[in-house]
Amino acid sequence: MGQLKGLPVGWESVMEYEVKIRVGSLQPLRARLASLGIRPVSNLTERDSYFNSPTRDFGRTDEALRVRSTEEGASLTYKGPKLGLAGVKAREEIIVSIDPEETMEEILLRLGFIHTATVEKTRDTYRMKGTYIALDEVKGLGSFVEIEAPAGLGENEAIALINRVRGELGVEGEEIPLSYLEMILATR
Amino acid sequence: MGQLKGLPVGWESVMEYEVKIRVGSLQPLRARLASLGIRPVSNLTERDSYFNSPTRDFGRTDEALRVRSTEEGASLTYKGPKLGLAGVKAREEIIVSIDPEETMEEILLRLGFIHTATVEKTRDTYRMKGTYIALDEVKGLGSFVEIEAPAGLGENEAIALINRVRGELGVEGEEIPLSYLEMILATR
Repeated sequence: MGQLKGLPVGWESVMEYEVKIRVGSLQPLRARLASLGIRPVSNLTERDSYFNSPTRDFGRTDEALRVRSTEEGASLTYKGPKLGLAGVKAREEIIVSIDPEETMEEILLRLGFIHTATVEKTRDTYRMKGTYIALDEVKGLGSFVEIEAPAGLGENEAIALINRVRGELGVEGEEIPLSYLEMILATR
Repeated sequence: MGQLKGLPVGWESVMEYEVKIRVGSLQPLRARLASLGIRPVSNLTERDSYFNSPTRDFGRTDEALRVRSTEEGASLTYKGPKLGLAGVKAREEIIVSIDPEETMEEILLRLGFIHTATVEKTRDTYRMKGTYIALDEVKGLGSFVEIEAPAGLGENEAIALINRVRGELGVEGEEIPLSYLEMILATR
Protein backbone atom coordinates (compact mmCIF):
# COMPACT_ATOMS: atom_id res chain seq x y z
CA MET A 1 0.00 0.00 0.00
CA GLY A 2 3.00 2.26 -0.36
CA GLN A 3 1.44 4.34 -3.11
CA LEU A 4 -1.62 5.72 -1.50
CA LYS A 5 -2.40 9.32 -2.19
CA GLY A 6 -0.51 11.43 0.28
CA LEU A 7 2.18 8.86 0.88
CA PRO A 8 5.51 10.05 -0.46
CA VAL A 9 6.60 8.30 -3.64
CA GLY A 10 10.26 7.65 -4.11
CA TRP A 11 11.34 7.23 -0.56
CA GLU A 12 14.59 5.40 -0.56
CA SER A 13 13.28 2.32 1.14
CA VAL A 14 10.56 1.85 3.71
CA MET A 15 9.23 -1.12 5.61
CA GLU A 16 5.51 -1.49 5.17
CA TYR A 17 3.47 -3.08 7.95
CA GLU A 18 -0.07 -3.95 6.99
CA VAL A 19 -2.93 -6.35 7.54
CA LYS A 20 -5.27 -7.51 4.79
CA ILE A 21 -8.72 -8.81 5.70
CA ARG A 22 -11.24 -10.42 3.38
CA VAL A 23 -14.76 -9.08 3.90
CA GLY A 24 -18.11 -10.01 2.38
CA SER A 25 -18.96 -6.38 1.68
CA LEU A 26 -17.26 -3.03 2.15
CA GLN A 27 -20.54 -1.30 2.86
CA PRO A 28 -20.63 -1.68 6.69
CA LEU A 29 -17.09 -0.34 6.89
CA ARG A 30 -17.89 2.66 4.67
CA ALA A 31 -20.81 3.41 6.98
CA ARG A 32 -18.63 3.07 10.09
CA LEU A 33 -15.97 5.41 8.68
CA ALA A 34 -18.66 7.94 7.69
CA SER A 35 -20.15 7.79 11.19
CA LEU A 36 -16.70 8.66 12.55
CA GLY A 37 -16.57 11.65 10.20
CA ILE A 38 -13.75 10.12 8.15
CA ARG A 39 -13.97 10.70 4.41
CA PRO A 40 -11.93 9.03 1.69
CA VAL A 41 -8.79 10.91 0.67
CA SER A 42 -8.77 9.23 -2.72
CA ASN A 43 -10.83 6.96 -4.97
CA LEU A 44 -8.65 5.38 -7.60
CA THR A 45 -8.70 2.63 -10.17
CA GLU A 46 -5.37 0.84 -9.97
CA ARG A 47 -4.01 -1.40 -12.69
CA ASP A 48 -0.98 -3.37 -11.53
CA SER A 49 1.22 -5.32 -13.94
CA TYR A 50 3.57 -7.77 -12.25
CA PHE A 51 6.81 -9.02 -13.72
CA ASN A 52 9.04 -11.95 -12.87
CA SER A 53 12.82 -11.89 -13.06
CA PRO A 54 14.87 -13.85 -15.60
CA THR A 55 17.43 -14.68 -12.89
CA ARG A 56 15.29 -15.82 -9.97
CA ASP A 57 11.65 -16.79 -9.50
CA PHE A 58 10.02 -14.02 -7.48
CA GLY A 59 7.32 -16.55 -6.54
CA ARG A 60 10.00 -18.47 -4.63
CA THR A 61 12.03 -15.54 -3.34
CA ASP A 62 8.81 -13.72 -2.35
CA GLU A 63 9.83 -10.54 -4.12
CA ALA A 64 7.67 -8.54 -6.50
CA LEU A 65 8.17 -6.06 -9.31
CA ARG A 66 5.11 -4.03 -10.20
CA VAL A 67 4.15 -1.32 -12.67
CA ARG A 68 1.13 0.53 -11.29
CA SER A 69 -1.01 2.97 -13.22
CA THR A 70 -3.80 5.06 -11.74
CA GLU A 71 -5.67 8.19 -12.73
CA GLU A 72 -3.00 10.13 -10.81
CA GLY A 73 0.11 8.71 -12.45
CA ALA A 74 2.26 5.63 -12.64
CA SER A 75 5.05 4.04 -10.62
CA LEU A 76 7.47 1.14 -10.52
CA THR A 77 7.75 -0.72 -7.22
CA TYR A 78 10.17 -3.34 -5.98
CA LYS A 79 8.95 -5.31 -2.97
CA GLY A 80 11.21 -7.41 -0.80
CA PRO A 81 10.20 -10.69 0.84
CA LYS A 82 7.29 -10.59 3.29
CA LEU A 83 8.12 -11.08 6.95
CA GLY A 84 5.32 -12.66 8.95
CA LEU A 85 4.63 -10.85 12.22
CA ALA A 86 1.57 -12.03 14.14
CA GLY A 87 -0.86 -11.58 11.26
CA VAL A 88 0.66 -8.29 10.20
CA LYS A 89 2.60 -8.38 6.96
CA ALA A 90 5.86 -6.46 6.72
CA ARG A 91 8.02 -5.97 3.67
CA GLU A 92 10.39 -3.51 2.15
CA GLU A 93 9.10 -1.35 -0.69
CA ILE A 94 11.07 0.85 -3.09
CA ILE A 95 8.96 3.09 -5.31
CA VAL A 96 9.85 5.37 -8.21
CA SER A 97 7.48 7.53 -10.25
CA ILE A 98 7.46 6.75 -13.96
CA ASP A 99 5.89 8.21 -17.09
CA PRO A 100 4.49 6.63 -19.15
CA GLU A 101 3.89 3.14 -17.79
CA GLU A 102 3.77 1.41 -21.19
CA THR A 103 7.34 2.46 -21.89
CA MET A 104 8.53 1.13 -18.53
CA GLU A 105 6.84 -2.18 -19.30
CA GLU A 106 8.50 -2.31 -22.70
CA ILE A 107 11.94 -1.73 -21.15
CA LEU A 108 11.33 -4.49 -18.58
CA LEU A 109 10.41 -6.91 -21.38
CA ARG A 110 13.58 -5.99 -23.32
CA LEU A 111 15.62 -6.64 -20.18
CA GLY A 112 14.24 -10.19 -19.98
CA PHE A 113 11.53 -9.70 -17.34
CA ILE A 114 8.39 -11.76 -17.83
CA HIS A 115 4.89 -10.37 -17.41
CA THR A 116 3.07 -12.72 -15.03
CA ALA A 117 -0.29 -11.19 -14.19
CA THR A 118 -2.34 -8.00 -14.02
CA VAL A 119 -4.36 -7.08 -10.94
CA GLU A 120 -7.12 -4.50 -11.33
CA LYS A 121 -8.98 -2.94 -8.46
CA THR A 122 -10.81 0.10 -7.24
CA ARG A 123 -9.29 1.44 -4.04
CA ASP A 124 -10.85 3.97 -1.70
CA THR A 125 -8.30 5.25 0.77
CA TYR A 126 -8.95 6.72 4.20
CA ARG A 127 -6.64 7.97 6.93
CA MET A 128 -7.29 7.24 10.59
CA LYS A 129 -4.91 7.74 13.52
CA GLY A 130 -2.05 7.98 11.06
CA THR A 131 -2.83 4.68 9.36
CA TYR A 132 -3.84 4.23 5.73
CA ILE A 133 -7.04 2.26 5.26
CA ALA A 134 -7.80 0.89 1.81
CA LEU A 135 -11.18 -0.48 0.80
CA ASP A 136 -10.43 -2.62 -2.23
CA GLU A 137 -12.71 -4.28 -4.77
CA VAL A 138 -10.37 -6.58 -6.67
CA LYS A 139 -11.44 -7.91 -10.06
CA GLY A 140 -11.92 -11.66 -9.79
CA LEU A 141 -11.03 -11.82 -6.07
CA GLY A 142 -13.62 -9.88 -4.08
CA SER A 143 -13.58 -7.25 -1.33
CA PHE A 144 -10.74 -6.55 1.08
CA VAL A 145 -9.69 -4.08 3.71
CA GLU A 146 -6.04 -3.22 4.16
CA ILE A 147 -4.77 -1.27 7.16
CA GLU A 148 -1.21 0.01 6.88
CA ALA A 149 0.89 1.72 9.50
CA PRO A 150 2.54 5.02 8.57
CA ALA A 151 6.17 4.83 7.51
CA GLY A 152 8.77 5.25 10.22
CA LEU A 153 7.10 3.28 12.99
CA GLY A 154 8.96 0.40 14.58
CA GLU A 155 7.54 -3.10 14.39
CA ASN A 156 5.80 -3.17 17.77
CA GLU A 157 4.30 0.28 17.43
CA ALA A 158 3.10 -0.50 13.90
CA ILE A 159 1.40 -3.74 14.90
CA ALA A 160 -0.24 -2.20 17.97
CA LEU A 161 -1.57 0.73 15.96
CA ILE A 162 -2.95 -1.47 13.19
CA ASN A 163 -4.74 -3.70 15.70
CA ARG A 164 -6.16 -0.70 17.54
CA VAL A 165 -7.59 0.81 14.36
CA ARG A 166 -8.93 -2.54 13.29
CA GLY A 167 -10.69 -2.89 16.62
CA GLU A 168 -12.21 0.57 16.50
CA LEU A 169 -13.53 -0.08 13.01
CA GLY A 170 -14.83 -3.49 14.02
CA VAL A 171 -13.34 -5.22 10.98
CA GLU A 172 -14.10 -8.90 11.25
CA GLY A 173 -12.97 -11.48 8.76
CA GLU A 174 -10.13 -13.64 7.66
CA GLU A 175 -6.58 -12.23 7.69
CA ILE A 176 -4.98 -12.92 4.35
CA PRO A 177 -1.20 -13.29 4.34
CA LEU A 178 -1.08 -13.38 0.53
CA SER A 179 -0.69 -10.52 -1.90
CA TYR A 180 -3.34 -9.97 -4.57
CA LEU A 181 -0.82 -11.23 -7.10
CA GLU A 182 -0.38 -14.49 -5.20
CA MET A 183 -4.16 -14.84 -4.92
CA ILE A 184 -4.63 -14.25 -8.67
CA LEU A 185 -1.91 -16.78 -9.50
CA ALA A 186 -3.47 -19.30 -7.10
CA THR A 187 -6.82 -19.11 -8.93
CA ARG A 188 -5.23 -20.28 -12.18
CA MET B 1 20.81 11.78 -27.96
CA GLY B 2 17.19 10.83 -27.50
CA GLN B 3 16.67 13.04 -24.47
CA LEU B 4 17.43 16.44 -25.79
CA LYS B 5 15.16 19.21 -24.66
CA GLY B 6 12.18 19.29 -26.97
CA LEU B 7 12.50 15.68 -27.98
CA PRO B 8 9.53 13.68 -26.70
CA VAL B 9 10.35 11.43 -23.79
CA GLY B 10 8.54 8.15 -23.58
CA TRP B 11 8.05 7.42 -27.22
CA GLU B 12 7.37 3.79 -27.57
CA SER B 13 10.48 3.06 -29.51
CA VAL B 14 12.44 5.16 -31.94
CA MET B 15 15.48 4.55 -34.09
CA GLU B 16 18.16 7.13 -33.51
CA TYR B 17 20.52 8.02 -36.33
CA GLU B 18 23.49 10.09 -35.30
CA VAL B 19 27.12 10.84 -35.95
CA LYS B 20 29.66 11.63 -33.24
CA ILE B 21 32.81 13.56 -34.11
CA ARG B 22 35.77 14.24 -31.86
CA VAL B 23 36.96 17.85 -32.04
CA GLY B 24 39.88 19.68 -30.48
CA SER B 25 37.67 22.52 -29.33
CA LEU B 26 33.98 23.38 -29.49
CA GLN B 27 34.70 27.09 -29.85
CA PRO B 28 34.85 27.33 -33.68
CA LEU B 29 31.53 25.47 -33.91
CA ARG B 30 29.87 27.73 -31.36
CA ALA B 31 31.02 30.69 -33.41
CA ARG B 32 29.74 29.15 -36.64
CA LEU B 33 26.32 28.44 -35.12
CA ALA B 34 26.15 31.97 -33.71
CA SER B 35 27.02 33.42 -37.13
CA LEU B 36 24.07 31.47 -38.57
CA GLY B 37 21.82 32.97 -35.90
CA ILE B 38 21.31 29.62 -34.18
CA ARG B 39 21.21 29.74 -30.37
CA PRO B 40 21.33 26.81 -27.97
CA VAL B 41 17.93 25.46 -26.91
CA SER B 42 19.41 24.02 -23.73
CA ASN B 43 22.57 23.91 -21.66
CA LEU B 44 22.54 20.95 -19.34
CA THR B 45 24.80 18.97 -17.09
CA GLU B 46 24.07 15.29 -17.65
CA ARG B 47 25.07 12.54 -15.28
CA ASP B 48 24.60 9.10 -16.81
CA SER B 49 24.84 5.91 -14.76
CA TYR B 50 25.13 2.75 -16.82
CA PHE B 51 24.12 -0.70 -15.67
CA ASN B 52 24.92 -4.17 -16.95
CA SER B 53 22.47 -7.06 -16.95
CA PRO B 54 22.80 -10.15 -14.75
CA THR B 55 21.67 -12.34 -17.67
CA ARG B 56 23.76 -11.08 -20.58
CA ASP B 57 26.78 -8.85 -20.95
CA PHE B 58 25.60 -5.63 -22.59
CA GLY B 59 29.21 -5.04 -23.65
CA ARG B 60 28.89 -8.09 -25.90
CA THR B 61 25.26 -7.67 -26.96
CA ASP B 62 25.89 -3.96 -27.58
CA GLU B 63 22.87 -2.92 -25.53
CA ALA B 64 22.83 -0.26 -22.83
CA LEU B 65 20.74 0.61 -19.79
CA ARG B 66 21.16 4.14 -18.53
CA VAL B 67 19.81 6.30 -15.73
CA ARG B 68 20.25 9.95 -16.73
CA SER B 69 19.82 12.91 -14.44
CA THR B 70 19.90 16.54 -15.51
CA GLU B 71 18.73 19.84 -14.09
CA GLU B 72 15.44 19.21 -15.92
CA GLY B 73 14.64 15.75 -14.62
CA ALA B 74 15.66 12.12 -14.90
CA SER B 75 15.01 9.20 -17.20
CA LEU B 76 15.70 5.52 -17.76
CA THR B 77 16.78 4.52 -21.25
CA TYR B 78 17.21 1.15 -22.90
CA LYS B 79 19.33 1.17 -26.04
CA GLY B 80 19.41 -1.64 -28.54
CA PRO B 81 22.48 -2.75 -30.49
CA LYS B 82 24.12 -0.19 -32.75
CA LEU B 83 23.77 -0.71 -36.48
CA GLY B 84 26.69 0.70 -38.47
CA LEU B 85 25.57 2.74 -41.47
CA ALA B 86 28.34 4.55 -43.34
CA GLY B 87 29.68 6.39 -40.29
CA VAL B 88 26.21 7.16 -38.98
CA LYS B 89 25.22 5.25 -35.88
CA ALA B 90 21.67 3.90 -35.62
CA ARG B 91 20.10 2.20 -32.64
CA GLU B 92 16.77 1.75 -30.99
CA GLU B 93 16.05 3.79 -27.87
CA ILE B 94 13.25 3.40 -25.36
CA ILE B 95 12.99 6.19 -22.79
CA VAL B 96 10.80 6.60 -19.71
CA SER B 97 10.76 9.55 -17.33
CA ILE B 98 11.55 8.67 -13.72
CA ASP B 99 11.59 10.46 -10.38
CA PRO B 100 13.80 10.32 -8.42
CA GLU B 101 16.79 8.73 -10.14
CA GLU B 102 18.40 7.36 -6.95
CA THR B 103 15.34 5.21 -6.32
CA MET B 104 15.44 3.82 -9.86
CA GLU B 105 19.11 2.95 -9.39
CA GLU B 106 18.32 1.22 -6.10
CA ILE B 107 15.62 -0.88 -7.76
CA LEU B 108 18.00 -1.87 -10.58
CA LEU B 109 20.59 -2.98 -8.03
CA ARG B 110 17.98 -5.06 -6.16
CA LEU B 111 17.02 -6.70 -9.46
CA GLY B 112 20.61 -7.83 -9.97
CA PHE B 113 21.83 -5.18 -12.41
CA ILE B 114 25.43 -4.09 -11.97
CA HIS B 115 26.56 -0.47 -12.06
CA THR B 116 29.40 -0.27 -14.57
CA ALA B 117 30.30 3.38 -15.07
CA THR B 118 29.16 6.96 -14.80
CA VAL B 119 29.57 9.45 -17.64
CA GLU B 120 29.37 13.15 -16.82
CA LYS B 121 29.20 15.88 -19.39
CA THR B 122 27.95 19.33 -20.17
CA ARG B 123 25.79 19.36 -23.27
CA ASP B 124 24.72 22.43 -25.23
CA THR B 125 21.98 21.54 -27.67
CA TYR B 126 21.07 23.35 -30.88
CA ARG B 127 18.50 22.64 -33.58
CA MET B 128 19.30 23.08 -37.26
CA LYS B 129 17.23 21.88 -40.22
CA GLY B 130 15.34 19.55 -37.91
CA THR B 131 18.48 17.90 -36.54
CA TYR B 132 19.67 18.01 -32.96
CA ILE B 133 23.23 19.18 -32.55
CA ALA B 134 24.95 18.54 -29.23
CA LEU B 135 28.22 20.14 -28.20
CA ASP B 136 29.54 17.90 -25.46
CA GLU B 137 32.39 18.32 -22.99
CA VAL B 138 32.78 14.87 -21.50
CA LYS B 139 34.66 14.48 -18.23
CA GLY B 140 37.85 12.52 -18.88
CA LEU B 141 37.21 12.15 -22.64
CA GLY B 142 37.27 15.57 -24.27
CA SER B 143 35.09 17.51 -26.71
CA PHE B 144 32.61 16.02 -29.17
CA VAL B 145 29.88 17.05 -31.56
CA GLU B 146 26.87 14.84 -32.11
CA ILE B 147 24.40 15.41 -34.92
CA GLU B 148 21.18 13.45 -34.69
CA ALA B 149 18.38 13.18 -37.22
CA PRO B 150 14.85 13.88 -36.01
CA ALA B 151 12.73 10.84 -35.17
CA GLY B 152 10.63 9.38 -37.93
CA LEU B 153 13.06 9.75 -40.81
CA GLY B 154 14.02 6.70 -42.83
CA GLU B 155 17.61 5.56 -42.94
CA ASN B 156 18.60 7.25 -46.22
CA GLU B 157 16.91 10.52 -45.42
CA ALA B 158 18.45 10.57 -41.94
CA ILE B 159 21.98 9.97 -43.20
CA ALA B 160 21.67 12.53 -45.99
CA LEU B 161 20.36 15.17 -43.60
CA ILE B 162 23.09 14.56 -41.03
CA ASN B 163 25.80 14.81 -43.67
CA ARG B 164 24.32 17.99 -45.09
CA VAL B 165 24.23 19.69 -41.68
CA ARG B 166 27.72 18.49 -40.93
CA GLY B 167 28.94 20.00 -44.19
CA GLU B 168 27.24 23.34 -43.60
CA LEU B 169 28.76 23.57 -40.15
CA GLY B 170 32.16 22.52 -41.45
CA VAL B 171 32.70 19.98 -38.70
CA GLU B 172 36.00 18.25 -39.34
CA GLY B 173 37.39 15.50 -37.22
CA GLU B 174 37.33 11.81 -36.53
CA GLU B 175 33.99 9.97 -36.58
CA ILE B 176 33.67 7.94 -33.42
CA PRO B 177 31.55 4.79 -33.63
CA LEU B 178 31.75 4.23 -29.87
CA SER B 179 29.43 5.44 -27.17
CA TYR B 180 30.83 7.55 -24.32
CA LEU B 181 30.31 4.53 -22.07
CA GLU B 182 32.46 2.36 -24.34
CA MET B 183 35.11 5.08 -24.46
CA ILE B 184 35.14 5.40 -20.65
CA LEU B 185 35.40 1.62 -20.23
CA ALA B 186 38.23 1.51 -22.82
CA THR B 187 40.28 4.00 -20.78
CA ARG B 188 40.34 1.68 -17.77
